[in-house]
Amino acid sequence: MNLYEALARDISESILQGVLGPGDRLPSVRQTCANRNVSPSTVFQAYYMLEAQGLIQSRERSGYFVAVTGNGGAASLLPPEPDTASRPDEAAAPLAVSERVFEVLESSMKRDVVPFGSAFPSPLLFPLARLARMMRSSVQELDPWASVDDLTPGNARLRRQLALRYLIDGLHVPVEDIIVTNGALEALNLCLSAVTRPGDAVLIEAPSFYASLQAIERQGLQAIAVPTHPREGMDLAAAERALERHRPKACWLMTNFQNPLGSTMSDQKKQQLVQLLTRYQVPLIEDDVYGELYFGGKRPSPAKAFDTEGLVMHCSSFSKCLAPGYRVGWVAAGRYARQVARHKLTSTLTTCAPAQAALALYLETGGYDRHLRLLRHKLADQQAGFIEALGRHFPAGTRVTRPKGGYFLWVELPEQVEALTVHRVALAHGISVAPGPIFAPQADFGNCLRLNYGHEWDARAEAALATLGQIVRSLAAPPGHA
Amino acid sequence: MNLYEALARDISESILQGVLGPGDRLPSVRQTCANRNVSPSTVFQAYYMLEAQGLIQSRERSGYFVAVTGNGGAASLLPPEPDTASRPDEAAAPLAVSERVFEVLESSMKRDVVPFGSAFPSPLLFPLARLARMMRSSVQELDPWASVDDLTPGNARLRRQLALRYLIDGLHVPVEDIIVTNGALEALNLCLSAVTRPGDAVLIEAPSFYASLQAIERQGLQAIAVPTHPREGMDLAAAERALERHRPKACWLMTNFQNPLGSTMSDQKKQQLVQLLTRYQVPLIEDDVYGELYFGGKRPSPAKAFDTEGLVMHCSSFSKCLAPGYRVGWVAAGRYARQVARHKLTSTLTTCAPAQAALALYLETGGYDRHLRLLRHKLADQQAGFIEALGRHFPAGTRVTRPKGGYFLWVELPEQVEALTVHRVALAHGISVAPGPIFAPQADFGNCLRLNYGHEWDARAEAALATLGQIVRSLAAPPGHA
Repeated sequence: MNLYEALARDISESILQGVLGPGDRLPSVRQTCANRNVSPSTVFQAYYMLEAQGLIQSRERSGYFVAVTGNGGAASLLPPEPDTASRPDEAAAPLAVSERVFEVLESSMKRDVVPFGSAFPSPLLFPLARLARMMRSSVQELDPWASVDDLTPGNARLRRQLALRYLIDGLHVPVEDIIVTNGALEALNLCLSAVTRPGDAVLIEAPSFYASLQAIERQGLQAIAVPTHPREGMDLAAAERALERHRPKACWLMTNFQNPLGSTMSDQKKQQLVQLLTRYQVPLIEDDVYGELYFGGKRPSPAKAFDTEGLVMHCSSFSKCLAPGYRVGWVAAGRYARQVARHKLTSTLTTCAPAQAALALYLETGGYDRHLRLLRHKLADQQAGFIEALGRHFPAGTRVTRPKGGYFLWVELPEQVEALTVHRVALAHGISVAPGPIFAPQADFGNCLRLNYGHEWDARAEAALATLGQIVRSLAAPPGHA
Repeated sequence: MNLYEALARDISESILQGVLGPGDRLPSVRQTCANRNVSPSTVFQAYYMLEAQGLIQSRERSGYFVAVTGNGGAASLLPPEPDTASRPDEAAAPLAVSERVFEVLESSMKRDVVPFGSAFPSPLLFPLARLARMMRSSVQELDPWASVDDLTPGNARLRRQLALRYLIDGLHVPVEDIIVTNGALEALNLCLSAVTRPGDAVLIEAPSFYASLQAIERQGLQAIAVPTHPREGMDLAAAERALERHRPKACWLMTNFQNPLGSTMSDQKKQQLVQLLTRYQVPLIEDDVYGELYFGGKRPSPAKAFDTEGLVMHCSSFSKCLAPGYRVGWVAAGRYARQVARHKLTSTLTTCAPAQAALALYLETGGYDRHLRLLRHKLADQQAGFIEALGRHFPAGTRVTRPKGGYFLWVELPEQVEALTVHRVALAHGISVAPGPIFAPQADFGNCLRLNYGHEWDARAEAALATLGQIVRSLAAPPGHA
């Protein structure tokens, strides 16, 4: 146990033993530093962790307080975590999920809807003014020939910055392996088409990001859903059975803060996964778009860190952590780099040159890590508020994950509550949710919701969550009690 | 015959009758306006037309002169135009052309190579400084929520400007039918995947743009190549036979300044094409990226102008006429708009928001048409210089098209000359060319080249063309005479 974990444990014991009561102010960061002889960042890490657990809350400009719940009770009233892995049908099957997903997504895309169902965090979380300055400088100095020279693989300076960031995280990724794309979504799609042909099978998690299901469907592939635990990710024994039985051509998953579960694989498990796939020579399409949004002390490794044969295609982007709307993502594609670049060349050619140059300049001039620290703090804060409110407004039998990063919660409602009904009724009240069935080939997870806490946690959000709780309660009540 | 055509005819008669000799200066635009009581734009149009025909040449800042050829002769020494339609194998066949195309493209992509084989015009032709100003203003005022609101179909202001431009050209295209894409290439690919399933057949021209061949191959489709005339485009009688015999699911072609031929269908022929496809209910994927680069008096209509049932998906972009590297294109997708938008949503989600906003602002503030006029003039000028030099440097038996727009010439070499050999030898001399076989499913057009005249016509270009002529002459000479 390191310093910040020890500090967090001590504080949480004080709260559980009643030494610190609901609403009590915690010692200031400065005091705690002095008392325990630790650095401010250690104290912040401990506080973030406690916030993420719903035990404490920060109030703008006034410090940290022990969480207060609606019933006056403390953290013991927070909803429990879900703790069982999914049990999908493990057969390989072509998909017919896309239409269902579109219906849900298209109905939710309005600015005046409370965006609990949104896939995007609030655009107000990002340093848009500083990005605009970078765009202004870089567009002025843009080499006219950049549009011809950089072409498919992307801006050389940006790719160098990306390689540097990998290096800082301990990964050696050659610049030549990096291809800049129109967001991570294009990277993922290019990887999939680079390593599969129609009819091939692909391993995925259950539940999994709906865009992976849609890509698999569009490309005429078969999906094999593997049991997945809401905290620990894919079940590797089940994955091995599926590899043996179906001989898939790719595995597509999210190792960190998985969408929708929020699960994160341990380093050990990531290494085992890569070893397993290497044994079967199956490429891994690793979606790691939330990896920078961790609440703990350090960035969780990507599976790519354990890749010795270039089998892992690590996809990420700036859309969720820096520059939404710029549509700049990338893939470190290992041995598939040439194939991926060729698919890009014939489908979208290259990525917007001014946007790439602006991001290169932003990374070169520093400040990204400072922005990320603030962003993580903010998201951890919002998660704590959200979970605490879920405890107050949702009925008993509700379970909620405690992701250690990202901006999604996975909520298991009492079994009789149909998430698609919740979606429909909530939308009539101007609230969107992402119902479980859009994350599964066979429309499983019928009583689950993915909720987005990446938007301002304010009175409107609180009221919307109260309304949502009412809706769920009414659907959960036995007939005659509604 | 309108005013400028009458003027051009009078001047060309003077030249052919020897009234004006090689090297003679033409009357100034002002004089001619006064003499004939016409507007300057009429005179310019006549001069552009004569330039494109190789009869006159402009010299920077000193006016127009009767063309001089290396042998001291006049325009009669210009190489003749090719005049026979292609005769492709009209069977439906899956493609295996992509690897061949990549080999040629990848070998030619270096800044220091003379870019006769390039697909791009010189980036120096574009108003990059003014675009940068637009980017600077628009990025400063960018609504943070734009990245969420505009999402897939694209920036509302940009789409309105596009609808307005259609309206000015006499087309009524609803804003809702327009989807902004990462260049025209994405638009074309999205259209293709929206209306086909693997195994379906697609009608194309022979020769056709290699990216269409690569897209057809990547999506597991069959191509049916239709005989195509180097001046008039696709043979409609042959197209009808192919529709009857193969029942294709789409037709993909370029109506204006076709790549690589430079052919343009007449309005009548465009209308007949649309009527024919409507009879068979086959959607048309119309690639019109060069449409704005016309040398005549008005923009040639797209086939979309004759579409009564929403069957034509009109694809274009700003990459070839305004903003290379911004990667902003679009499709007016008619009845397929919803399908195309959904394919975009699941493959690249949306297009770079700042780039879209900058282009919207550029179009709103005016000046685009002025830029286009200058660009057309410049390209017409470069075409004239290029054709004239081809006449001097290339052997007898060479034929060269006279496209009325765009920036490509299609060159038929003497039959025994292999274009792939020319490509290889020229590359060793630092000169790229686009050999005919990359434009055809069965590697036809073995003695043809596509040459790009969209770069500065200067001493380096002239010297490179002389070298290329030498290479062709040596390959054309009977054995023993090389």
